[in-house]
Amino acid sequence: MIDNPFYSHEFHGDYDLISIGRLDLEEGGSIADCRLAVATFGTLNEAKDNAILVTTWYSGTHQIFRDVYIGPDHALDPDRYFIVVIDQIGSGLSTSPHNAPDEISMSQFPAVRIGDDVVAQERLLREHFGIETLQLVVGGSMGAQQTYEWAVRFPDKVLRAAPIAGTAQNTPHDQLFAKALMEAITSDPGFADGEYKSNADVAAGLTRHAGIWAVMGFSTEFWKQEGWRALEFESKEAFMAGFLEPYFTVMDPNDLLCMAWKWQHGDVTRHTDGDLAAALGRITATTFVMPINEDMFFPVRDHEAEQQHIAGSELRVIDDILGHLGLFGVAPSFMPQIDQHLTELLARKA
Amino acid sequence: MIDNPFYSHEFHGDYDLISIGRLDLEEGGSIADCRLAVATFGTLNEAKDNAILVTTWYSGTHQIFRDVYIGPDHALDPDRYFIVVIDQIGSGLSTSPHNAPDEISMSQFPAVRIGDDVVAQERLLREHFGIETLQLVVGGSMGAQQTYEWAVRFPDKVLRAAPIAGTAQNTPHDQLFAKALMEAITSDPGFADGEYKSNADVAAGLTRHAGIWAVMGFSTEFWKQEGWRALEFESKEAFMAGFLEPYFTVMDPNDLLCMAWKWQHGDVTRHTDGDLAAALGRITATTFVMPINEDMFFPVRDHEAEQQHIAGSELRVIDDILGHLGLFGVAPSFMPQIDQHLTELLARKA
Repeated sequence: MIDNPFYSHEFHGDYDLISIGRLDLEEGGSIADCRLAVATFGTLNEAKDNAILVTTWYSGTHQIFRDVYIGPDHALDPDRYFIVVIDQIGSGLSTSPHNAPDEISMSQFPAVRIGDDVVAQERLLREHFGIETLQLVVGGSMGAQQTYEWAVRFPDKVLRAAPIAGTAQNTPHDQLFAKALMEAITSDPGFADGEYKSNADVAAGLTRHAGIWAVMGFSTEFWKQEGWRALEFESKEAFMAGFLEPYFTVMDPNDLLCMAWKWQHGDVTRHTDGDLAAALGRITATTFVMPINEDMFFPVRDHEAEQQHIAGSELRVIDDILGHLGLFGVAPSFMPQIDQHLTELLARKA
Repeated sequence: MIDNPFYSHEFHGDYDLISIGRLDLEEGGSIADCRLAVATFGTLNEAKDNAILVTTWYSGTHQIFRDVYIGPDHALDPDRYFIVVIDQIGSGLSTSPHNAPDEISMSQFPAVRIGDDVVAQERLLREHFGIETLQLVVGGSMGAQQTYEWAVRFPDKVLRAAPIAGTAQNTPHDQLFAKALMEAITSDPGFADGEYKSNADVAAGLTRHAGIWAVMGFSTEFWKQEGWRALEFESKEAFMAGFLEPYFTVMDPNDLLCMAWKWQHGDVTRHTDGDLAAALGRITATTFVMPINEDMFFPVRDHEAEQQHIAGSELRVIDDILGHLGLFGVAPSFMPQIDQHLTELLARKA
């Protein structure tokens, strides 16, 4: 366990750390006292049937949803819904390599799968809040992986699903992309096989990791049109040094690696012996599949290939030259599209 | 200077090493005795007006052109044309960091620009072969950068131009991509600030560099469709270990860095104070701009934006799910497309 001040209320505002007890993991091993960071918005009604679950992406937490996606002027409206954002295992706020007890700390942290997160989330919602059905599960990127896992694993509990910019079965290209990201970190001599004393020891690796995100996370057109000017930077170098690099260098390397491995291994066909059509055929949720048109590593066609296996689903493509990292909601045109689709989805009879 | 057996006749067949004397460089400094590796195919006619120049890409040499692009069954037909392939400075065969004399060896090697190569090539063709005009300049990727530089710098000498999968002005995204590739190499402790004793000392960095190429060099669809099966590999891991990683690990790190820096800084607008339309407006060659539709870092639209500034040019899009590395000519459908376009271009009155 090491101290990293980034993972705190100071930087992430209000959230509760809720223990769900022992979590046995798909890959073997267990987390004896698994704690999930949870931020809620709105009020659970008496029938406990107005809940929405929001799942989080690689390196992200509830913070971005609180700041960008949730509010009375959004589809994720706390005046109507009880919105629960659960930070994924490895996020740095929930149980993660850097904050785990010594026996599973740092390099000893076990491999965690998307399915482990979803099992943990279901238990938390049921045991802590008494929630048995969800009006909607929504998440982007790794959050989309969790959304799919929810809809396939617990079809009776998910009335609607909105995976954004992510797939049900991770692609080989994404596996390679995540590998390159991981190697940028682990190749840093300061990483010390995962037993560094501070994330600062791995600053060079985390910075290279940010550099690879720059190549794949935004679109070629974002860079060409100098989209970073909207964030008031003077040059792409200033944008890297002032935004993308510090975004990652404050984070914990092992935590990022935990999430990256999980991302690499996301696969709903584990429920169906590798049969994708059968896995997606389990979904009964009304589903909007929402790729971003300029996404370089979760391209539209990968979403479409999956969407065609989901009965009654629709493909709703988001237009954003930011590409995958459009998920940050920087473009003024991003959230209106998200809100339009989610509003329509929530109005559908489920 | 270090010995690297890869850069030899054993691995690259016949070529001549031709000195063009002292080459003063755009960035300052000079190469006192600049030698260019040259492979020729066919016979120069008496009028010396049947020459085609082929320029080379990052990590590539004349070898791939000899093996894949040139032959009596191709547009680049040595029975009709005198085809000269000139390996770029930094290629490992021409003057390069690893083979340069001590005063400019290894980390001391000066920065070389696309313009320096083109000046060197023009001098070689004129002084060594007496060639004053070229029926065609053609090259892929960094070879396309050189092709554009030729057509802008020496418009009277270039009758036809075929830049394939590369741009006249390097894009910011490509600058970042090349940066990530360079950092994979330079971050290896074995790189030793460029003063390693053998490329084997940098094997880890070169392998990570190959891993980033895997992400950007091929398309997402190549990996999804398991395009590596065409090369008779059993898995993508076997393909990486048996093809892409050894492809790069035999190479010299400083040589790759020399080329990567050159790629990053390719820009024909250096002739026109940053005015792209003016630079491309100089081109009098009949030009076919030939992007590959699945290219992830030289996307079609970047070619199209430039092509529109070239009078009488045409956009000819190559269909290949291999993406950028379709340039290797692995797909059976690749060379027929190249040949069709080049045959048509060569038939055009210039």
